[in-house]
Amino acid sequence: MALIVQKYGGTSVGNIEKIRNVAQRVLKYHEEGHKMVVVLSAMAGQTDGLVRLAHEISPQPDPRELDVLMSTGEQVTVALLAIAVQSLGYEARSLLGFQIPIHTDQLYGKARIYEVDTERIMRELERNRIVTVAGFQGLDEDGNITTLGRGGSDTTAVALAASLEADVCEIFTDVNGVYTTDPNVCPKARKMDFISYDEMLEMASLGAKVLQIRAVEFAKKFNVPIHVRSTFTEERGTMVVAETKDMEKVRVSAIAYNKNEARITIKKVPDRPGIAARIFEPMSKPEIVVDMIVQNTSEDGLTDLTFTVPRAEFHQAMKLVGEVAKEIGAESVLGDESIAKVSIIGVGMRSHAGVAQKMFRTLANENVNILMISTSEIKVSCVIDEKYTELAVRVLHEAFGLEDGPAREEW
Amino acid sequence: MALIVQKYGGTSVGNIEKIRNVAQRVLKYHEEGHKMVVVLSAMAGQTDGLVRLAHEISPQPDPRELDVLMSTGEQVTVALLAIAVQSLGYEARSLLGFQIPIHTDQLYGKARIYEVDTERIMRELERNRIVTVAGFQGLDEDGNITTLGRGGSDTTAVALAASLEADVCEIFTDVNGVYTTDPNVCPKARKMDFISYDEMLEMASLGAKVLQIRAVEFAKKFNVPIHVRSTFTEERGTMVVAETKDMEKVRVSAIAYNKNEARITIKKVPDRPGIAARIFEPMSKPEIVVDMIVQNTSEDGLTDLTFTVPRAEFHQAMKLVGEVAKEIGAESVLGDESIAKVSIIGVGMRSHAGVAQKMFRTLANENVNILMISTSEIKVSCVIDEKYTELAVRVLHEAFGLEDGPAREEW
Repeated sequence: MALIVQKYGGTSVGNIEKIRNVAQRVLKYHEEGHKMVVVLSAMAGQTDGLVRLAHEISPQPDPRELDVLMSTGEQVTVALLAIAVQSLGYEARSLLGFQIPIHTDQLYGKARIYEVDTERIMRELERNRIVTVAGFQGLDEDGNITTLGRGGSDTTAVALAASLEADVCEIFTDVNGVYTTDPNVCPKARKMDFISYDEMLEMASLGAKVLQIRAVEFAKKFNVPIHVRSTFTEERGTMVVAETKDMEKVRVSAIAYNKNEARITIKKVPDRPGIAARIFEPMSKPEIVVDMIVQNTSEDGLTDLTFTVPRAEFHQAMKLVGEVAKEIGAESVLGDESIAKVSIIGVGMRSHAGVAQKMFRTLANENVNILMISTSEIKVSCVIDEKYTELAVRVLHEAFGLEDGPAREEW
Repeated sequence: MALIVQKYGGTSVGNIEKIRNVAQRVLKYHEEGHKMVVVLSAMAGQTDGLVRLAHEISPQPDPRELDVLMSTGEQVTVALLAIAVQSLGYEARSLLGFQIPIHTDQLYGKARIYEVDTERIMRELERNRIVTVAGFQGLDEDGNITTLGRGGSDTTAVALAASLEADVCEIFTDVNGVYTTDPNVCPKARKMDFISYDEMLEMASLGAKVLQIRAVEFAKKFNVPIHVRSTFTEERGTMVVAETKDMEKVRVSAIAYNKNEARITIKKVPDRPGIAARIFEPMSKPEIVVDMIVQNTSEDGLTDLTFTVPRAEFHQAMKLVGEVAKEIGAESVLGDESIAKVSIIGVGMRSHAGVAQKMFRTLANENVNILMISTSEIKVSCVIDEKYTELAVRVLHEAFGLEDGPAREEW
């Protein structure tokens, strides 16, 4: 008898038939004696539709009101799932962010959970009820509705699993696990049985879209095992867990790519202390996340500074950077929206040299020019021209032998 | 400088363009220096759509979950109106039932408001913000969402107006006021400038659909003047107010009809004390509202009992009555779904005889058979065959001279 938190994404609850299927799946677990907490997203397309409505009225709708609007999507699905469970003869109760409550900060549209009350949920579970919980939403300390950002329901699920000390957090989605790379790009991509939190974090932040990055951070912090699996099959998916000894033998686990960034270069920046802080400070207010930053060695007291920002915030960033560049007396600002970031990821990488060189050589063999490089303990990322993305992913996947199962051989 | 509560119905906020129009109308008042609280319904058709979804899953969806589901409709419109107001350069803030809070009992689907906190709304108004309030919804003492029943947004508006001690409560709708009768049935129907709470209550309970009955009761109790008017014109509508001396001169103000009832007759009921209580008790549990009750004089210790129930609950009522009829040894139960109730209404009626007789005579002249009669201080209702409804309304409207303005002549 376990306490299980499950989360079903928008495609898994996209219509009445699918909601019925979710009810049946949840009840199978319930019948086995497990306590079930089920976190739902809005029906696929619903949230986008609501945001479109708001944008029909205003190009920049107020974030507070946008959250009030968007949070209705999950409210609909949790009520419908509760009704579906009840129609099969079991007790169920839906709970919204404000009813639990899920306490967040006040950053509308990308709020962070800082506490989840468990009392109300536990009370419902003790009455043998299945609890359906609206994902993606919380409550700030002034009683305003907040939302957690795209994919926020994953974070809701993991936060609940952590707070309730659940045995496992199952994330049901429309793919059957985490792949060594995007199967749409590389047909030889292989489903992984296990992946570590750190690897998954790199995958998520690189745009692998399977799990929201904050959900993985949460899971890592509280050591919540996540099982990523398909709503439409019974087969096991991928377990996201703390690192194991076995994992360390693997050099490269996966190839990720990200086409959602843009590159900005400031030419001939006066190279003096505090200048970087000066440049990036204006972007911190609107929370533009600057990703890779590369600064060349200085020449005549002038340096070139290059960095990447989310492509959606490229124009805003260019404007802010343009202003600050003028103030500090830089020569010019260049922008490039047609770039991509390709990365190799693996916890085993940290103890083995030669991985980065192999990556560079593989790309060079295909005449793919590397525009920027950044490394961490468990990944190497290269920014390249966007049009070479798919090619790069395929040749790297092959070079590191990922189609054959975990790449443990030496090279 | 007044405090004004306005309420806009579903057709008034049915699309983005209409929501923009509402924003402009509200801002005109705001510009004149008034404090504005705006209560909204869901977009027309939205609530029905949600209820249909629930019924696709279950023939009898759980009332608690239905309320969670339905309350999203108003959440959408209040957020969109706030965004629309903001896009015109003004401050606005949406508030949901749980945020105010609007405290209700726990009768899901037809909850009653017992208290409205004004502190949060007043705080927003003091900051010169326009407050948009989700109608139709409240919060019970366990923190569950409740809804107030069809037309509940009217009640929300009046309850807010009462609690905030507003100067007026304006109900914007798709008709431009309260008419002497249904203009679709009687082209000579005339818009009234004033109507008393009591008359309006009779109009509402008889199915005139302009205002929810509970809203009028609330308004009467707290003496809140209601202005019923059209969203689509600037002209004055109808003021619903306490009775005035002037009104008392009017015999009959309006003709109402209701096709939403059905008639049930229990034949040969043993006529002994407690028998009526025994018959109606089973219907009180599912809250079936029994309207007219007629009991004939007893013959051989047996009597016929006839009453009307909402047509939607006719089958349920027939089942319950059938069971109890058997228990008490009545002969049989007859039901008739094709009846209508036609009523004449007027506060002046109570001090003048002859009004009822005139009604009966008028119907008799057209060979309309009267099946049941009930009277109150300010109305006379006759149940007739449904097919004569329109005819009856037209001849009564003419007989009481309602097309010529308030009928003050003697007859």
